[in-house]
Amino acid sequence: MTTVSSFAYDDLSIGQKAQQTKQVTEQDILLFAAVSGDCNPVHLDEQYAATTMFKERIAHGMFSGALISAAIACNLPGPGSIYLGQELTFTRPVKLGDSLTVELEVLEKLPKNRVRIATRVLNQNNEMVVDGVALVLAPKKSTEVNMPSAPQFIQK
Amino acid sequence: MTTVSSFAYDDLSIGQKAQQTKQVTEQDILLFAAVSGDCNPVHLDEQYAATTMFKERIAHGMFSGALISAAIACNLPGPGSIYLGQELTFTRPVKLGDSLTVELEVLEKLPKNRVRIATRVLNQNNEMVVDGVALVLAPKKSTEVNMPSAPQFIQK
Repeated sequence: MTTVSSFAYDDLSIGQKAQQTKQVTEQDILLFAAVSGDCNPVHLDEQYAATTMFKERIAHGMFSGALISAAIACNLPGPGSIYLGQELTFTRPVKLGDSLTVELEVLEKLPKNRVRIATRVLNQNNEMVVDGVALVLAPKKSTEVNMPSAPQFIQK
Repeated sequence: MTTVSSFAYDDLSIGQKAQQTKQVTEQDILLFAAVSGDCNPVHLDEQYAATTMFKERIAHGMFSGALISAAIACNLPGPGSIYLGQELTFTRPVKLGDSLTVELEVLEKLPKNRVRIATRVLNQNNEMVVDGVALVLAPKKSTEVNMPSAPQFIQK
């Protein structure tokens, strides 16, 4: 359990940034297949993936979307944010072992506590793999929440 | 292992639809927290969630995004599709136990095998919880793939 605080709408400024980095593991790809139901062999089967234009297994595109949503919910603006919308452009494949950095940047403060946030995901070569913009309802007040530990899973 | 075939670009017609339904389980919410890293207590902690405007635990918004991406990848156009982009508007919260129907509808056929597909998610009360549009590169030829079984996980 860790304590995480959020940025209130009034505390957010144009150009404010946050970023977080994560390496894509085998477990991530299997968990995303399990939770989404997308078991396409380009994600799960190395031999099949070798026959595709990607040459090797790739992560699900929306896995990067999940990382973006987590960065918004946990980081900028953080807990208490309400996710209103997200535009995503998938620009490059993500491979097993890639190190993904989610970069957020406040683009615009809109009426009624809404903010537009640039949401980019870069790989370890600084290549953009996902570009996009989120629309978020920021908390009126900064709040602190006790963030439960991540549930741990093992494959059956 | 099941065999799934895709629709080639030339086989797709404006107005063509597909849908799939899934109930949101406790395991889904925990798996999504694990794979995204978003462990906000509004998703994981019943007591905390009772103090929020939602009154009870809600699924992560991007969980619905994951279901949309799976419907595109497995159903319409199906295997061999390349996901180019997705717009999402989160219109209502999703509760534990809700039954979510992802509805896809081909909106437009664009040059170079690209298609725009309406992507809506409805709950058991026929209320829209997510609205959106996907941009997909459809396969040039219909292909059949052997879809591996979904990885099975148990919580540690």
